[in-house]
Parts: sequence; structure tokens; C-alpha cells
Amino acid sequence: MTYANAISILKNRFGEQLSTRMADREGHGKDEGGHAPMLPDAVLRASTKNEVADAVRLCARYRMPVIPFGAGTSLEGHICAVHGGLSIDLSGMNRILALNETDQDVRVEAGVTRQTLNTHLRDKGLFFPVDPGSECTLGGMAATRASGTNAVRYGTMREQVLSLEVVTADGELIETGSRARKSAAGLDLTHLYIGSEGTLGIITELSLKLHGIPEKLAAGVCRFPNLGAATDTVMATIQMGIPVSRIELLDELSIRAVNQHAGTSHLEAPTLFLEFGGTAAGVDEQIATFTDLALACGGSHIAFADNQEDINRMWHARHQLYYATRAMAPGKQVVTTDVCVPISRLGDCMAETRADFEKSPVMATMLGHVGDGNFHTIMLADPESATEISAMEWLNERMVRRAIDMGGTCTGEHGIGLGKRTFLAWEKGPALTLMRQVKTALDPHGIMNPGKMLPDR
Amino acid sequence: MTYANAISILKNRFGEQLSTRMADREGHGKDEGGHAPMLPDAVLRASTKNEVADAVRLCARYRMPVIPFGAGTSLEGHICAVHGGLSIDLSGMNRILALNETDQDVRVEAGVTRQTLNTHLRDKGLFFPVDPGSECTLGGMAATRASGTNAVRYGTMREQVLSLEVVTADGELIETGSRARKSAAGLDLTHLYIGSEGTLGIITELSLKLHGIPEKLAAGVCRFPNLGAATDTVMATIQMGIPVSRIELLDELSIRAVNQHAGTSHLEAPTLFLEFGGTAAGVDEQIATFTDLALACGGSHIAFADNQEDINRMWHARHQLYYATRAMAPGKQVVTTDVCVPISRLGDCMAETRADFEKSPVMATMLGHVGDGNFHTIMLADPESATEISAMEWLNERMVRRAIDMGGTCTGEHGIGLGKRTFLAWEKGPALTLMRQVKTALDPHGIMNPGKMLPDR
Repeated sequence: MTYANAISILKNRFGEQLSTRMADREGHGKDEGGHAPMLPDAVLRASTKNEVADAVRLCARYRMPVIPFGAGTSLEGHICAVHGGLSIDLSGMNRILALNETDQDVRVEAGVTRQTLNTHLRDKGLFFPVDPGSECTLGGMAATRASGTNAVRYGTMREQVLSLEVVTADGELIETGSRARKSAAGLDLTHLYIGSEGTLGIITELSLKLHGIPEKLAAGVCRFPNLGAATDTVMATIQMGIPVSRIELLDELSIRAVNQHAGTSHLEAPTLFLEFGGTAAGVDEQIATFTDLALACGGSHIAFADNQEDINRMWHARHQLYYATRAMAPGKQVVTTDVCVPISRLGDCMAETRADFEKSPVMATMLGHVGDGNFHTIMLADPESATEISAMEWLNERMVRRAIDMGGTCTGEHGIGLGKRTFLAWEKGPALTLMRQVKTALDPHGIMNPGKMLPDR
Repeated sequence: MTYANAISILKNRFGEQLSTRMADREGHGKDEGGHAPMLPDAVLRASTKNEVADAVRLCARYRMPVIPFGAGTSLEGHICAVHGGLSIDLSGMNRILALNETDQDVRVEAGVTRQTLNTHLRDKGLFFPVDPGSECTLGGMAATRASGTNAVRYGTMREQVLSLEVVTADGELIETGSRARKSAAGLDLTHLYIGSEGTLGIITELSLKLHGIPEKLAAGVCRFPNLGAATDTVMATIQMGIPVSRIELLDELSIRAVNQHAGTSHLEAPTLFLEFGGTAAGVDEQIATFTDLALACGGSHIAFADNQEDINRMWHARHQLYYATRAMAPGKQVVTTDVCVPISRLGDCMAETRADFEKSPVMATMLGHVGDGNFHTIMLADPESATEISAMEWLNERMVRRAIDMGGTCTGEHGIGLGKRTFLAWEKGPALTLMRQVKTALDPHGIMNPGKMLPDR
């Protein structure tokens, strides 16, 4: 199906903002995951919410699919144009509209990136904590219910969004909530749109909670003889209620990858990277309690730092992991996947997943936002080798099935997109029917990011 | 409309569990708010989730309204049977199904009360923090997005529910989430059902987060020359990031009411009641920082206690307020209402509301979960006096309109029910259309708690 008439009208309305050039279509048909490109028919670079609303209204009339596009950093094919249509690029809607320092909240357009926001906030003593690995837009982060390393303390986008403005599937602008910190007023449309992956509408503005930068920050690393000793330490830390800002686990192979990549000589053992924040006395107390717990679980080579340069150096290995893993086998396809389980099952889940890798031809590193029970694998397979590609699929399915069986979820933070739709059905069972009913109610013509999240019938 | 056929089939299926006795109907047709009773045609005392599902399936066939009933402690007429039908009483479904100490979560049936749960948890060192004023069921608390005094630190039911099992409007049992602490898998059905007030289905089981009881607790009181000085202190406390467990404000008239009721001689001034929790050193640090802030804002007569008996004595006045206010004018009708605003507007909102009271014949006390920007009024009016009743309605409307205009919400924690449906329309505007679409999609025959939350068309 082509949308020549719709595109011609869009072109009239939007002029140079509307592009059908191949380079623009290619730039909007593939995200950072391993999914094959699927190009939209046209790309609209929106600069106001009213433009987004107008475009959606027009697409609705022509039943032309609409795919919202932020920074294109998703991993599960969220922005692939499965059925063609219009990619609406919101990255130009990047104004910070209102900062309320007293209320510690901010209103932003959807195209503002988290980095831009935090740069803007730096001299106010405030920050926005949700930090997925890439430079992504806040609208995209809300749409995919993103999280990151700080989630153990501050929660995910689910906890940080006060209200959204969205363009509905018929092109209406609506506000889902208010700036009040809590409300018992009506159905929770805010949370319905958080994580909806563009399938119910397009997020155009966000009201977000902010947090005071802690008086003191400190970082730490701690090595363990095996994964189980590390995950036991994580469990104990969370159970004790130590308010860690970050607690990240890298497995032995991850550290080896970093050493090879960066020429470092970190001890090649499962390693926790931590960050503590609070008052000076509070941070000291957190560190002391954590150290006792870690030692009791078999931790060793514990080191802490409390100036920003040393903290950055300490975290360097963690931040290098994706590139370090890639560098272990140049030319191989990289696929990352993630699951999340109750923390009591994390040790088993990671160990069994590691055992699967040992049996397969696929090389993979593992790392986790382990305070939440969330971990990732970065898998490497030869794209020319059917054996390796199918092994990778098998490993992904095994890991997801295991996580669901352990009471967890098929994705902690990457989302469903194209890649995990079957897994969503595994996880949700009959609840999928309710999701379909909501989708049909709010997008009766099925134009909002079609082919995503919900499995084909 | 009567439902004789449906009731006769229900009677066959459920025997003694199904009652059409007037006493049972009366016991299920009025909550603790000021709304007139509206009786269901029958009451089912459910003992299992499958009974609930069977009953709903049967009601769906006969288009008979279904009203879920927990403890009947709602305030906005949530359980009134506006169109008759079947009240399903879940208070007999009161089993604690699985406690996971390591994961700090618990699975309960919907009829378990928060007090029962906390009694069960006490010797585990864990507790469930959400604490509305009454002895209410956890299912009802989720259905109304309840909160209470601890919300400033722990959040509301919105933050504490991991997953729900619900019976849908066609009698299917579905699970909305998992035990994972976070998930990016699909539409957020859990939050769609939290706060849905029985209009989308019936909550039958809940997975809830638990928290470690802090090593040390301390309580404090602090008096202020005026409301503004108190709310300035609250703003500063929240901005500083002091992790208060509770911060409650009673106005001058509230303290007078308590003194008259209990024969105490508390200083009759706006008063903050606080609770601090954490490590011993952490609590001392919180108290020291708070004291500095309060003194700088004009606070005085500051006192702290750290043994449970003294803490209880200190909080006694706070807990007595509802009864103390009633006792100021015996025989008058009591109506409580609540709003929530951004904390920067709390001082203005409370002061302007107080000024309205001064101009009216209605006596009212004010208190707030002020750390969230949430406050309540307890109003007293003569039910025989049309002037006083209409003044009370005017005051409620003024307060709600003011809160919405200040960027807040028409209810922080009481919910919409029957009483605030018009206000929901004021607050939500075009977003109401989306709520109606979701409602129609998930309850196409309109049998789930009809006449609630959404205004009549």
C-alpha cells in the first residue's frame, strides 16, 4: 500500500519539514538493536505539538501508519515502519518549558534528551535520575518505560513522570495528569501511556519529577569468587535497606572483555560496581554496612572513591562494556536482551543463563542492574552462520522463558517492540486480551505504530 | 429494574452466601462518607476468586450491576448501588497466600486488611506502609489508589502494588503483572486497575511490596505562628531531601478541637507532627536538619520522642482529630473532602480555603499529609439547614476549583466515587473521553460499579 495522496497533502502542509528522501527514510527505519531496517514512506520533522496533532489527524483520515521517533536508540525494533507510513521525528521539539525548583519538577517537550535536561539543571542542585545507556529523548524514554542504573534507588520512568501530554490516535491533544504528587482522580492514563511504545498515541510533553543532587557521592567496587556470592551480597544489601544509588554486576567475561579492550588489568572475577549518595555521614554509614555484608558473602578487593575523577575512573570499565564486548569478535552481530526476576531468583537465573552460553557457540557477556533483579546479555554471533544465529535465538528464548517461570518478566527495560511480541504473549497469557481491547478502543483504525508490542493475530 | 432471575440463579449457586435480607443490603449500600444509602438487590459473601468470577459471569449474562465491597470505608459513595445489583463482599477472602521475605513482597487475597497484614509481618521485621485512616481492605485500597501518612516517604498504593489478579467484566481471571520490580513488557494493566474504583473489574488478589522496619523511629511536633510558616517549613524539608516518614499539619482550630475533646492543653497553633525513620545516626541527623529549618521559618515549641510510648502520645492528637471535630458540634453532618496541589502552592491553597471557611456558616478543621501537598477538611453542617448544606457544597467546589487551577487534583486520596464526578470532568477535560473509551472497551455492558467515577452523559 502506498500513501501518495496523504503524503502529497502532508507535503503541502509541512513543506521542507516533510521528507521522502531515501537518506531520511533510512535514518528512521532502524534502531540500535539487531532488527532489519523497515523504512517509513516519509519523515516529518515536527517542531510543535500542534504540528504533531495535525499530522496524526491527517494520517488518521488516510489510515496511514504513524511511528513516533525520538533518538532512534531503542533496541527491539520499536521504530521500524512495519507497514510503512509516516515517521514523526520529535527530536526538534527540544525546549525545556518550565522548571519549578520549589516543587522539584520540570515540563519539557518530548524531544529533550536526558543529557540536555541534566546539563540545564546542573547549577540548580537538581537532577533527573533515569539513565538508560544511550543519548535518548525523554519522550522515547517514557514511551518505552525506560530505566537504567539509578532505578534501584529512584525507580524507572514509571515512577518519575507526573503527567504527559499526548496526541491521541485521532489527533487530539490531551493531558493525562497534573503536577500534584499524588491523585486519586480517575483512571491512570499517565501510566497507560508510559510504556505504550507509541501504540496508543504520541507523547509531546512531559512533567517530570526531579531530585536534589546528594551532598556526597561515593563509588565502590567489590570482587567475588563466583556470581552467586555477588548476587547474595546484592540481596543482603537490598534487604538491609541500604539506599544504594547504583549496584551493577559484571560477570568474569565482561571484565576480561574490558581488560582486552582498554589494556587494563582488573581482576577477572564477577564484580559489583556501586554508588552511594546522601549526607557525608550517611554515605560513610552505607559504605561500612555494605562492606560488612560483602565480606561476609566472600567479597574481596573492595575499593571506594569519593572524588568525581576517581569515581569516573572506577565506573569506566562498566561504561565500556558494550564496546569491549563488540571488540572481542569484530564483524559479529551484537544482540542485547534483558530480563528481570525477583531478586531471590537472580543468582539462579544468571547462573543457568551462563551455563546455556557455555553449551552454545555464542559468546556473551552478562551485566545487571542487579538491585532490581534486572540483567542484560550482550551476545555475539556471526551473521553468516545460521547455526550461531539460531543458537542466539534459542538462548534468548531460554533466558526469557526462565525469567517468566521464576516470576519475572521478559524485559526489564528494553521493551517489546517487534522483537519480544511472542514473549509478551508467553508472559501475559489472557491479560493480552485486555491489552488488545485497550489498543482497539484508543486506536480503532490501528494506525499508531502498527505491528509493535501486541503479537499479530 | 429488578434482577429476580439473576438472583434466583445466584441463590442456587451460592446458597447461604447470597443474601437479600434488608440488613445485609443496608450494610452494603452506604460507606463512611456523607452520601445517602443506595441499596444493592443482593449481597454475595465471596470466599474464593472463582466464586467472584462465577458471580460476575452470571451478572454479565443478566446485565446485572456488580459492586465490589471491601470494608465499606470509602468516603465518596464508592459502594452505593446506584442502579441496584449485586454487592460482592470480599472481606471473607482474607488469606495471606505467600510471604517472600527475601524479595520483600507478599501475595494476599483482596479482603485482607492492612492491619491484619502488618500484624502478620511484625515479627519478620517488615511492614506495609500505606495507611489510610480506617481499617480497610487491601483490595479496596488498590481500587481507590489509597494513601495516608506514610506516602511522603513510601508513596501510595500506586507505588506499592507489584501485580493484581482481577476478575474482568466478563468473568475472566487475569494477572496484570509479575513479581519483578520493574518491567517494560506491554501496557501497564496494573496501574490501569489501581484507582479504577471497581469500574473495570474486581481485584481478587494482590502482590505487594514490603519494607524493612527502620532500625530507629522518632517522632516530633513543632508549632508555628501561622499556616504559612508551617508550609514553608514543609517545603524546605522536602527540598532538602530529608527522608521524613510522616509530616502532618493540623491547623489551629484542629488543635483547639482536640484540646476540647481530650481535655489536653496543647498550644493552639498550626502544628506539624513528624516521624523520622532510619539508622540511629541517620535519624539524629534528620532531626538536627529539620530543627534548623523549622527554627528559621519561625517554628517553636519543638519536641522529639524516640520511644514508642512517647511517640504514640505525641501522635494522639493527630489521630483524634476526626472525632474531636465531630464533638465540636454534636448532631451536625460531617463531610470530609481532600485535594492535592504542588507543594509550592500548598500555603496559598490552605490559606484561601481557610478564608472561605471564615466567611461561611460552616465550621471546619483542616489537616494535611502536607509533604505530598495533600490536605483534608472536615466540615460540619446542620443537615436540617439548607443554608449550611449549600454552603458546604460551595466550599467543597471552591476548594476543588482552586486546587485544579493551582495545577493540582480534585482528590489526593479519597477518590471520585459518586461525589466528585463533576470535579473529575473539570480536572480532566478532554482526557475524560479516553477514560470513557477504556471503560467501554473493558466493560462493554456497563455492569461494573455503574454510576461511579465517570460523570453521567
